[in-house]
Amino acid sequence: MTQLKTDAYIRDLFEFLSIPSISAQKKHKKDMLKASRWLEKKLKSLGFQVKILPTAGHPVVYAERLPKPSAHRHTLLLYGHYDVQDPGNLDEWSSEPFKPEIRSGNIYARGAADDKGNFYTWIAALEELSKKSKIPTANIKFLIEGEEEVASKNLEDFITQNKSLLSADICLISDSRCLSETQPAITYGLRGILYTEVHVEAFEKEIHSGLYGGNVTNPTIVLAQIISKLKDEKGKILVPGFYQNVRKLTASEIKKLNKLPFGEKEIIQETGAKKSFGETDYSIPVRAGARPTLDVNGVWGGYQGEGEKTIIPGKATAKISMRLVPNQDPESIKGKFEEYVRDITPDTVGVEIKFLSSGKPTVMDIDNKFFKKADAAYKKVFGKKPIYELSGGSVLATAAIKEILGVDSILMGYGLPDDGIHGPNEKFSLTMFTKGIKTNIDFLKSL
Amino acid sequence: MTQLKTDAYIRDLFEFLSIPSISAQKKHKKDMLKASRWLEKKLKSLGFQVKILPTAGHPVVYAERLPKPSAHRHTLLLYGHYDVQDPGNLDEWSSEPFKPEIRSGNIYARGAADDKGNFYTWIAALEELSKKSKIPTANIKFLIEGEEEVASKNLEDFITQNKSLLSADICLISDSRCLSETQPAITYGLRGILYTEVHVEAFEKEIHSGLYGGNVTNPTIVLAQIISKLKDEKGKILVPGFYQNVRKLTASEIKKLNKLPFGEKEIIQETGAKKSFGETDYSIPVRAGARPTLDVNGVWGGYQGEGEKTIIPGKATAKISMRLVPNQDPESIKGKFEEYVRDITPDTVGVEIKFLSSGKPTVMDIDNKFFKKADAAYKKVFGKKPIYELSGGSVLATAAIKEILGVDSILMGYGLPDDGIHGPNEKFSLTMFTKGIKTNIDFLKSL
Repeated sequence: MTQLKTDAYIRDLFEFLSIPSISAQKKHKKDMLKASRWLEKKLKSLGFQVKILPTAGHPVVYAERLPKPSAHRHTLLLYGHYDVQDPGNLDEWSSEPFKPEIRSGNIYARGAADDKGNFYTWIAALEELSKKSKIPTANIKFLIEGEEEVASKNLEDFITQNKSLLSADICLISDSRCLSETQPAITYGLRGILYTEVHVEAFEKEIHSGLYGGNVTNPTIVLAQIISKLKDEKGKILVPGFYQNVRKLTASEIKKLNKLPFGEKEIIQETGAKKSFGETDYSIPVRAGARPTLDVNGVWGGYQGEGEKTIIPGKATAKISMRLVPNQDPESIKGKFEEYVRDITPDTVGVEIKFLSSGKPTVMDIDNKFFKKADAAYKKVFGKKPIYELSGGSVLATAAIKEILGVDSILMGYGLPDDGIHGPNEKFSLTMFTKGIKTNIDFLKSL
Repeated sequence: MTQLKTDAYIRDLFEFLSIPSISAQKKHKKDMLKASRWLEKKLKSLGFQVKILPTAGHPVVYAERLPKPSAHRHTLLLYGHYDVQDPGNLDEWSSEPFKPEIRSGNIYARGAADDKGNFYTWIAALEELSKKSKIPTANIKFLIEGEEEVASKNLEDFITQNKSLLSADICLISDSRCLSETQPAITYGLRGILYTEVHVEAFEKEIHSGLYGGNVTNPTIVLAQIISKLKDEKGKILVPGFYQNVRKLTASEIKKLNKLPFGEKEIIQETGAKKSFGETDYSIPVRAGARPTLDVNGVWGGYQGEGEKTIIPGKATAKISMRLVPNQDPESIKGKFEEYVRDITPDTVGVEIKFLSSGKPTVMDIDNKFFKKADAAYKKVFGKKPIYELSGGSVLATAAIKEILGVDSILMGYGLPDDGIHGPNEKFSLTMFTKGIKTNIDFLKSL
């Protein structure tokens, strides 16, 4: 294969990365539109017909390039998302999150790996083929949403309403990772999610800790007690019935997963943890992909300023999310979670439980012929067959695409374990960027 | 007694209340100086010799007016503080905290009751007597600190270094409350305090909750577990040895305390709590004044923004303070607290325990002759004898003044239970302001 026009693609991608399209924050609504228009312009330049379609939230960018019909023509659905996570504390970033730059072989920016850069490998692959007049024979449809980072709130409705528009034989998603620059991976299962906010209120306003301390409850302590009853000190989730429908893995699945190079060493290297922590009955790769979790994503209440403030806070809040695995049903878990939290909340406080979003877990059929083609493309570019992984993350689109459209998704992602997605200094490896474009080209040519 | 020049005093006090002298926050250093200079000018106008004396933190305003020596002349030490608490969430204030205003018979401002307005009753009393050329015969010294709200960090050192300057027969402090506009009270005991910050760290940066959830610890959950092991669900503090030196009240003390009109009804009315909560073996007034407490004053970790962020926080922090009673020793509790927290912290995280401040609890000798004079002054102005109260709050100066100078303090405070000190919409009753000035005048005249 000849040299790619990598420099031009990087310049182009940098434009896309510069748009702070943070879907969770209302103040970035204009940036969301800007990012969708950027995609519209880009895909039009590649000969696609593009529509920016409204949803109850941020719009979906839909694009299609359908050669004249042929009975043997395959239809690909390329899924990606143009929204990104909030960059968090800017002090922890070495360069500004929305001013992309290259340092030692990596692109640093919010969204570099998740998902703008990762997804851009498909755009670059199509552009590359266009330049060489090797237009793929397959029908290609793009479904690029703006709400992946807020649990694809409106995607299920959108897919339901646009079923025929989105019909396809296979969906391709580059929103996952390989194990290293030399070991490719295909994700064949993803966890679902249930994201909640628990609000505990004891007083309308904070009160004096000297005058009332000893005679009233403390909502931050009550919230701590609730949290400590959600998960025990061995990592077991205590919500009754939580594990009820968790699919048991087959012995051969466990064996395959346990071959993954994801153990104590990798956990420590990638996260900086002192050691791993989790259910001792399961191995690290099994825990990562096939076991549900419960985590507090944020907690606050009372005085957070400098020095002392001698008050009892009036309220306390925690953001608590659960990652779900097949065959847990988010709706059923929602009921169990709410009932349990109400049950363990003392009558000295009021409690409100908000459900921010939810999405179902999925597992794909890897015997699908398109998996074999993806497998071959990886083999050709990386020189190694991909490992099949159950990811701990959630790409909620996969469940909706499977359930509503009846289409499996192949997660051909080019991130790396140390990309730091969702955290500060998110990066995307230039080597993976190039290999990703090449793998996509190969896959497209194989159809 | 003739009419007081209340309007003039209010105008004057409003100037003082307009200065945002928040001692806990470095950005208010200039305001702290401004407040100390305001006092300097004011006391000079009343014939005092004034010095602004440096400490390792905010300066102390010292002032004296010493008539020619006489064997029978009493020396009074008037203690107050010119610093205030941070106003907290401004949205919860009906008027701006540093733009004092009068609404339905109350002065609303941060510091109105704690302690600027309360303390100003002494300035007004002295001004009133001056105007009528009834200068009190006693020697009068002022000790006005700028660090009461940050646990009087440097006061012990200051008093030690200025022992002879501050020598006195009795100390008077208006930084407490009466029970109502018709029921005066003298506080004869105050709780001490130990204020800490507990920092739990699992990762340097936040990490992706999907990729790592189930395989790593979560510092916000660990902190919740620590907090829930500090105090049980019945309100008992679980730090081993915490209650060891708590002074047992005599039967007659308990009987007296239980006569205080401070019960379930008052707790609910004053705080808005659904119900009271505390150690069931003790009554509400005993719990308020004679039992130690442990409260979380603030807690935070991870994402606090709008919507979802799917991360595991790297760190979590809680501000935890304990109110101590005689004969608990803050230094000994410090050791016990630190040892216990280290003991219950799992090895998956690092923990750091910072001690922000501490102060000893105190109880006064109410048989002191000055107590009798204060008692009589209250009786004259309010028409009722004061109730003797053990306060749940802490005025740490009292312990230092007693231990280093050997001087008892009489807490003649004019706040009311619903003043909302430390919270939003702090107020000070105009009726109490006037009665306070009159009671102080009467006390000064009785010497």
